[in-house]
Amino acid sequence: MKNYTLILVAFAFLTFAKTASAQTDPAVFTGATAKLKHYDALYILNSNDEKKIKGTLRNIDNALEDVRLKGKLHVELVVFGDGVAVYMKSGAYEQALKDLQAKGVVLAQCSNTIRERKIDKADLFPFVSYVPSGNGEIIIRQYEGWAVVHP
Amino acid sequence: MKNYTLILVAFAFLTFAKTASAQTDPAVFTGATAKLKHYDALYILNSNDEKKIKGTLRNIDNALEDVRLKGKLHVELVVFGDGVAVYMKSGAYEQALKDLQAKGVVLAQCSNTIRERKIDKADLFPFVSYVPSGNGEIIIRQYEGWAVVHP
Amino acid sequence: MKNYTLILVAFAFLTFAKTASAQTDPAVFTGATAKLKHYDALYILNSNDEKKIKGTLRNIDNALEDVRLKGKLHVELVVFGDGVAVYMKSGAYEQALKDLQAKGVVLAQCSNTIRERKIDKADLFPFVSYVPSGNGEIIIRQYEGWAVVHP
Repeated sequence: MKNYTLILVAFAFLTFAKTASAQTDPAVFTGATAKLKHYDALYILNSNDEKKIKGTLRNIDNALEDVRLKGKLHVELVVFGDGVAVYMKSGAYEQALKDLQAKGVVLAQCSNTIRERKIDKADLFPFVSYVPSGNGEIIIRQYEGWAVVHP
Repeated sequence: MKNYTLILVAFAFLTFAKTASAQTDPAVFTGATAKLKHYDALYILNSNDEKKIKGTLRNIDNALEDVRLKGKLHVELVVFGDGVAVYMKSGAYEQALKDLQAKGVVLAQCSNTIRERKIDKADLFPFVSYVPSGNGEIIIRQYEGWAVVHP
Repeated sequence: MKNYTLILVAFAFLTFAKTASAQTDPAVFTGATAKLKHYDALYILNSNDEKKIKGTLRNIDNALEDVRLKGKLHVELVVFGDGVAVYMKSGAYEQALKDLQAKGVVLAQCSNTIRERKIDKADLFPFVSYVPSGNGEIIIRQYEGWAVVHP
């Protein structure tokens, strides 16, 4: 009877060990054709070049629509430096941003940029969120296991 | 007799757990002077600027020849957006690409770019392979543990 | 008696497995509000554009001062290609570099660039250190778990 209990404990270990490994880095065990259930990606924009802005927004959409990621990808766009142009009410990107937000994309602005450039938050879209620094966000998200894309 | 079996099972666990950890991220345990047996790197090119293209191809070669990586590094070059220029038959990069391919570099093109720009695949070198989206590739490869370089 | 021993062994496993997982990637278990004790970040500079150079140096400082990272972030700046301009004695960045070095930032130069461009090391600041290749450094640091930022 006791031995049966021990065998049960053993099976519990096996299950726990597998689960722990999978949470840590499942891709290692599943290879290139892996189909994880969830991916996080941080997109970076620090340019006010119209082509770069449009390209970055389109790139995010392409990633969300990739057959390998569709329905499993969560994206945050972090903006700093000249990139702040994308969030200005005076800009031309309101609809594109709203479309991405409707797909779950978090739109984040570097607070350092706002302070250094004395930009009034009222001039940015109200649906923008703020992080202490764009650069800190890039580092922390990588430590949290996120993929980072700077097109 | 049954107890011996259980002890064997226990040892099997210990072995499994250690192996699993080591496979997940060996660098964590070996430090900066680590000499892993294998590295994977994804290079990104999304520009048609001649200097950027030549620089990226030369950078890949520099990484392959780095004394710390030589013979242990596998590279994939993923191209999207304007970067498609590097794979066009009309371009000047055939020999440089063939030299990299001879060193094992996988040359991948974003299918989205081809479709959006209505580019005929027949205009690209036949040794180019295709991925659903360049951006999806960047995210998935990071989740698979690859290093990513966007020079 | 033997069964008690086995139960002890079982508990030892559980403890070991949890410790191993935590060492591998603590962030996975602590989430976005995690406060790790230490972060490493590799910054990349491969441009001689004055705005890009100044922006990169300022970005490093912003990361070091981010409330989430202050006192816990170690940075290395790796320079290759045109970026070598930042380390030239003839340039205008000596004080900014010394300020960063005083905050613990390691200033590294790609040896390939120096050799390919026949640059005399005597023309670079004496406090610069050298790595075999900037690209190798980018790949190896990622395998060592570092965050990488290319502003």
